[in-house]
Amino acid sequence: MFLTVTLNTALDLTYRVPALVPHASHRVTEVAERPGGKGLNVARVLAALGHESVVTGFAGGPTGEVLRSLLAPLPVRDALVPTAGATRRTLAVVDATTGDTTQLNEPGPVIGPAEWTAFTDRYAELLGSAEAVALCGSLPPGVHVGAYADLVRQARAAGVPVLLDTSGEPLRRGIAARPDLVKPNTDELARLTGSREPLRAARDARRRGARTVVASLGPDGMLAATPDGVWRATPPSGLRGNPTGAGDSAVAALLSGAHLDWPARLARAVALSAATVLAPAAGEFDAAAYEDILGQVTVEEHASAA
Amino acid sequence: MFLTVTLNTALDLTYRVPALVPHASHRVTEVAERPGGKGLNVARVLAALGHESVVTGFAGGPTGEVLRSLLAPLPVRDALVPTAGATRRTLAVVDATTGDTTQLNEPGPVIGPAEWTAFTDRYAELLGSAEAVALCGSLPPGVHVGAYADLVRQARAAGVPVLLDTSGEPLRRGIAARPDLVKPNTDELARLTGSREPLRAARDARRRGARTVVASLGPDGMLAATPDGVWRATPPSGLRGNPTGAGDSAVAALLSGAHLDWPARLARAVALSAATVLAPAAGEFDAAAYEDILGQVTVEEHASAA
Repeated sequence: MFLTVTLNTALDLTYRVPALVPHASHRVTEVAERPGGKGLNVARVLAALGHESVVTGFAGGPTGEVLRSLLAPLPVRDALVPTAGATRRTLAVVDATTGDTTQLNEPGPVIGPAEWTAFTDRYAELLGSAEAVALCGSLPPGVHVGAYADLVRQARAAGVPVLLDTSGEPLRRGIAARPDLVKPNTDELARLTGSREPLRAARDARRRGARTVVASLGPDGMLAATPDGVWRATPPSGLRGNPTGAGDSAVAALLSGAHLDWPARLARAVALSAATVLAPAAGEFDAAAYEDILGQVTVEEHASAA
Repeated sequence: MFLTVTLNTALDLTYRVPALVPHASHRVTEVAERPGGKGLNVARVLAALGHESVVTGFAGGPTGEVLRSLLAPLPVRDALVPTAGATRRTLAVVDATTGDTTQLNEPGPVIGPAEWTAFTDRYAELLGSAEAVALCGSLPPGVHVGAYADLVRQARAAGVPVLLDTSGEPLRRGIAARPDLVKPNTDELARLTGSREPLRAARDARRRGARTVVASLGPDGMLAATPDGVWRATPPSGLRGNPTGAGDSAVAALLSGAHLDWPARLARAVALSAATVLAPAAGEFDAAAYEDILGQVTVEEHASAA
């Protein structure tokens, strides 16, 4: 099975309003709730691709209970660890006039030391049967900034390939622990390396410890700097839609495509990401669109050595 | 005891953000949750004034459970009736830069016919020991627009004085059932009567069926059109603060002041309302400020007959 870790899970709320006007009062016309957090999204996509997937991380309080009840009917195994605080809410306010979204993210519960120990025990146990693991998203309050570095080391010690998808200082520390794969976007790479030039920045990130760096270039596709060479994959142009969850779909494709060569693995990540952008609901993807786009992705190898 | 009815209770959330920027992503720096809905606020103020108060209406789902758990430690008796749907959330987003608030209100759960019957049975039972009742706020989906008119008639049949604080068509229908008191603001009165002139509009509302109309004039105080005459009460000028809950405090003062003459009753409503505006937390009031302002409220009787 594939394991995904979401330390700061979220109850994702979406409000639809006729038009968002700051400092006014609004009647919300539609309310949607779904279990959220990057690792949960990755696990859902893995399940939709036919893979067994298990989610761990923390859930607590009334919002955590709702999250788990929404997760229960999905083809994803819940191995979340209880926490005393309440799971955070994230709120997307969709303006029905413009289609634009305003995002409000709660910080999340404070994780205590005993809870962290309970989590790492569960993580060690789950690694025993994991084909690969993805560590996803932000750290909740109370978890030390080097936590992902520790989890990367634990996976490597267990011989389980580990993908890290986070940002800022947790990414910087995590990379130093030598994960198999990181998937930063251009902004995250620039914060890490100081360079906005993707090839230069990806190579820098490899030198910092990541075995492979897959840089997400948004609508321009992805660039992979690997031990075997550098490839760039580009989707067909002009695909428009909702980019929410596109990165999580790319993680799912990269995690489950380890048996493929890099051009094929990268093409799948780009196609699945694009099919997620095209789907009407955030974080879903259209299987037919995925197959269709996969045939149109172009992959080029970079001439010089990685 | 005093009974307050809140058919569409709410879990009131407050998010503090550094600055609210539409279509951007925000980290919420502070999250607060409290039990909400106008009748719950009225009951809290009644309790703070030393009166026994009981709240009824509907609560359901995980948000309803949180609301009831937050209500439990307060000196207010919970006589809420279960509903299958989830109690709505209302969200106030406070912009820390400007101090302004953006409000987002969910519609609330759909109330089924059997749930409505369960509520009216509970209401009838509670009326048996009520000194007065306040019917407060909007109707949840599924409750017929004439519901407040029915509840007014039920209270009158039980000999219990009834105050109605709502707006729009539920107010129009409710007034026709002859409540003892309504407390519209200038906008609500204008929607009801077509007149923005408070005295004219209040007299019109009396002709429509309300025994007494107390029109809220915001910072200019209140105007009471009663069977005994017309009075206007004015607070000291220049009071600034958060008007959230000021109307609910006025309802609490009017409900509990039935033993007083109109000038005294109105002065208390205006002073308590002003003390609520001055308090730092929305819906709270400062007891010392209340006593102080009460001595500064001016009440004038209108010369012509009501």
